[in-house]
Amino acid sequence: MNDRPIGVFDSGLGGLTVLKEIMKILPNENIVYFGDTARVPYGPRSKETVMKYTFQAINFLISKNVKAIVIACNTATARCLKEANEKYDIPILGVIEAGARTAAYSTKNKIVGVIGTEGTIRSKAYNLEIGKIDKDIRIIDKSCPLFVPIVEEGWANTDIASLTAKRYLKELVDENIDSLVLGCTHYPLLKRTIGQIVGEKVKLVNPAKETAKDLKKVLEANSVLRKDNSGVYEYYVSDIPEKFASIAGEFLKKEIKDIKTIEIQKY
Amino acid sequence: MNDRPIGVFDSGLGGLTVLKEIMKILPNENIVYFGDTARVPYGPRSKETVMKYTFQAINFLISKNVKAIVIACNTATARCLKEANEKYDIPILGVIEAGARTAAYSTKNKIVGVIGTEGTIRSKAYNLEIGKIDKDIRIIDKSCPLFVPIVEEGWANTDIASLTAKRYLKELVDENIDSLVLGCTHYPLLKRTIGQIVGEKVKLVNPAKETAKDLKKVLEANSVLRKDNSGVYEYYVSDIPEKFASIAGEFLKKEIKDIKTIEIQKY
Repeated sequence: MNDRPIGVFDSGLGGLTVLKEIMKILPNENIVYFGDTARVPYGPRSKETVMKYTFQAINFLISKNVKAIVIACNTATARCLKEANEKYDIPILGVIEAGARTAAYSTKNKIVGVIGTEGTIRSKAYNLEIGKIDKDIRIIDKSCPLFVPIVEEGWANTDIASLTAKRYLKELVDENIDSLVLGCTHYPLLKRTIGQIVGEKVKLVNPAKETAKDLKKVLEANSVLRKDNSGVYEYYVSDIPEKFASIAGEFLKKEIKDIKTIEIQKY
Repeated sequence: MNDRPIGVFDSGLGGLTVLKEIMKILPNENIVYFGDTARVPYGPRSKETVMKYTFQAINFLISKNVKAIVIACNTATARCLKEANEKYDIPILGVIEAGARTAAYSTKNKIVGVIGTEGTIRSKAYNLEIGKIDKDIRIIDKSCPLFVPIVEEGWANTDIASLTAKRYLKELVDENIDSLVLGCTHYPLLKRTIGQIVGEKVKLVNPAKETAKDLKKVLEANSVLRKDNSGVYEYYVSDIPEKFASIAGEFLKKEIKDIKTIEIQKY
């Protein structure tokens, strides 16, 4: 059981920032990553479509004999984590709960900002999770559709990124948030630019980091932590996108070899 | 035959700018529009994936008994217009040939710029078509991935649009282009901003307009122009995206009612 891999799934390559945090915290674990690059982005899609795609991804990972799955995609977590846990037997973690919890416990003035794709923001999933912990926390949320292509262009630290961040985040700063959830896997790469706009008094919460910590606890609780050294990583995508190598390198800070393409609609 | 509709297909909603030009030039025609919104964008996808999606879209339009099809998507035109015309009997037009021809005949210094999505630029389809007309024309091409989300945010006339256009278009201006092909259906909405960056001496070529003129000629040549007044329009998508109404309104300058959702992978 302990040698069975962890499955990590995202609609595209953003989930590699989550993979990176898991590798750091659980360096012994074998991991299978699947990026649904043929159907990215999930953000603007309907709940039914996202659920269908997510279940196909989970079916694929289960065919790889995984012992746990992290849905490293805010949209998919927001739309169907609950349904996924009802349908499957292995532990399935999303990226929202841990981020929401960290924000709820770190805010002092009880005003929290949440940014993400349209799908994540529309789902109100962070609001719901934060509300479960403390219903008095006020949440200012905002979708930021330009952030993903800015990161993918490698423009995270340009004037365009700053102006875009200023335009998106002005209302959150005006509302005096003291914690900001980076509710999209691409956003940690914009941490510096976002930090400059919101100021250093605002704590930036990276759900990827918090989720990796949660995963470790789940594996410990189930006594399935791998003992051997240095995990092995496998990468699967549903299509090889043009900038795969450069984007993957930037997200993971590590070269990726032997990426396999699969026909995900068969799962 | 004459009452049979024209089919217009795009990976998303950008093709509505092409639909708009067809409505202007051929106001009597019935039209069926299909936007593959569940699988947009095609730009970063492989040729095989784009071809599979395009053939499914054509099969759907043929099930609606269309007399001609316009592939109002630069990526799909670039990757598989030739294959589509080999496979099907009705006339299928793309958006590239007409735009390339207009640029080739309008340039005086024989230096032409072409901008589009990654897929379109990588395909070199405009270069190929322009080269067929005049092999001495030098082409400076550039992919501009931020332009689509900027248009969809309604930011076409902001400082962010200007800075992004400046960054993308600097090398084209430096190379002294005198014609610029707006090789993506979203880009006509950025015409003013792009015009300010490249200067008024550079002619902006809108392939949508040129394609609508070509379509009229094809229908005339086949004697299948519709005689009755005021065409009827039908809209189909593979998923209803969040901002459908606002984006469609901005692109078409007209309200869209009764959009039907279809399962495109069945075709």
